[in-house]
Amino acid sequence: MTLRVLGVDPGLTRCGYGVLDAGSGRSASLVDVGVVRSSPEDGIDLRLLEISRGLEAKIEEHAPDVVAIERVFSQNNTSTVMSTAQVSGVAILLAAQRGIRIAMHTPSEVKAAVTGSGRADKKQIQTMLVKLLKLDAPPKPADAADALAIALTQLWRGPGPVRLDGAGRARTSAQAVWAEAERSARRARESSTSRF
Amino acid sequence: MTLRVLGVDPGLTRCGYGVLDAGSGRSASLVDVGVVRSSPEDGIDLRLLEISRGLEAKIEEHAPDVVAIERVFSQNNTSTVMSTAQVSGVAILLAAQRGIRIAMHTPSEVKAAVTGSGRADKKQIQTMLVKLLKLDAPPKPADAADALAIALTQLWRGPGPVRLDGAGRARTSAQAVWAEAERSARRARESSTSRF
Repeated sequence: MTLRVLGVDPGLTRCGYGVLDAGSGRSASLVDVGVVRSSPEDGIDLRLLEISRGLEAKIEEHAPDVVAIERVFSQNNTSTVMSTAQVSGVAILLAAQRGIRIAMHTPSEVKAAVTGSGRADKKQIQTMLVKLLKLDAPPKPADAADALAIALTQLWRGPGPVRLDGAGRARTSAQAVWAEAERSARRARESSTSRF
Repeated sequence: MTLRVLGVDPGLTRCGYGVLDAGSGRSASLVDVGVVRSSPEDGIDLRLLEISRGLEAKIEEHAPDVVAIERVFSQNNTSTVMSTAQVSGVAILLAAQRGIRIAMHTPSEVKAAVTGSGRADKKQIQTMLVKLLKLDAPPKPADAADALAIALTQLWRGPGPVRLDGAGRARTSAQAVWAEAERSARRARESSTSRF
């Protein structure tokens, strides 16, 4: 059975989601990507309800095996961090209510897994997503791309943290995985060539 | 119809709840008080689910008109602030799903409303709760007492912030309300005495 991951980039104005299916080897295919929005003009209760309903609909539609959520830190951006934490609580609860496993990844773990550097910028992540998922263009807005990156991190890394070396490079990055897959494919071609 | 308030002091290990009914004038009567717990040995998903189920049961049991929740600030205590925010998000969502109005009060608004000082300690709050709600002993643990104080703040102050003067004293504190009620009762006795 194919492992399906829902990645969530928690946010109150735009909550990114991205659904990926694990492919053969370490490939992955895009199932769905987008954002659930709530209006800044509404109160926090209506906004959390809107985000909850949107995420709930995506969980019901895609029935993921795992929900992977970006871990929020309080030192990041104090003005929005509390509402981001509230949305992450809602996302975790929605998964828990359905008995779906959850996983949390920090932003630098996600960057490291997808680009090979824990300090990669948004553009590098988008470039890697386009390449790895064979997309025509980067997913937009950035929150949607981030959610896909979180899902990809989960597919490759599982629940454990990505280990970084001293320079902030991941021990096993998406680039390394990609390179390994190309090497493996080349070996397969070469071995089939030599066999016939 | 009596206004009923559920106060919530969000927390992952102990989430305090307190239910009060508005009485005549500015009195209030205790309906229920306690804490919903989750085990620190469980994962965040199971813990949020336990807290959610516990709060949900209290909302269903008491059918409050308003759910008043302590507003969490990211600068308070960074080690627990994210999980506290997640629990507050869950409490807000439970109210919103049932169309119950929510209100948020900061810790200093609650202290000011109940004791007259935005810098009161826990003991002062508990002493005022015993006096105002005619209890035999302070509600325990502290999270339960805090939830009652939040509910009381909501009964007296409504959704707006309590205004503090330069010395951190509330313009209208519980003590002032209490004194006013006593004055009013004295006036009533005096006027009935002079009438007969």
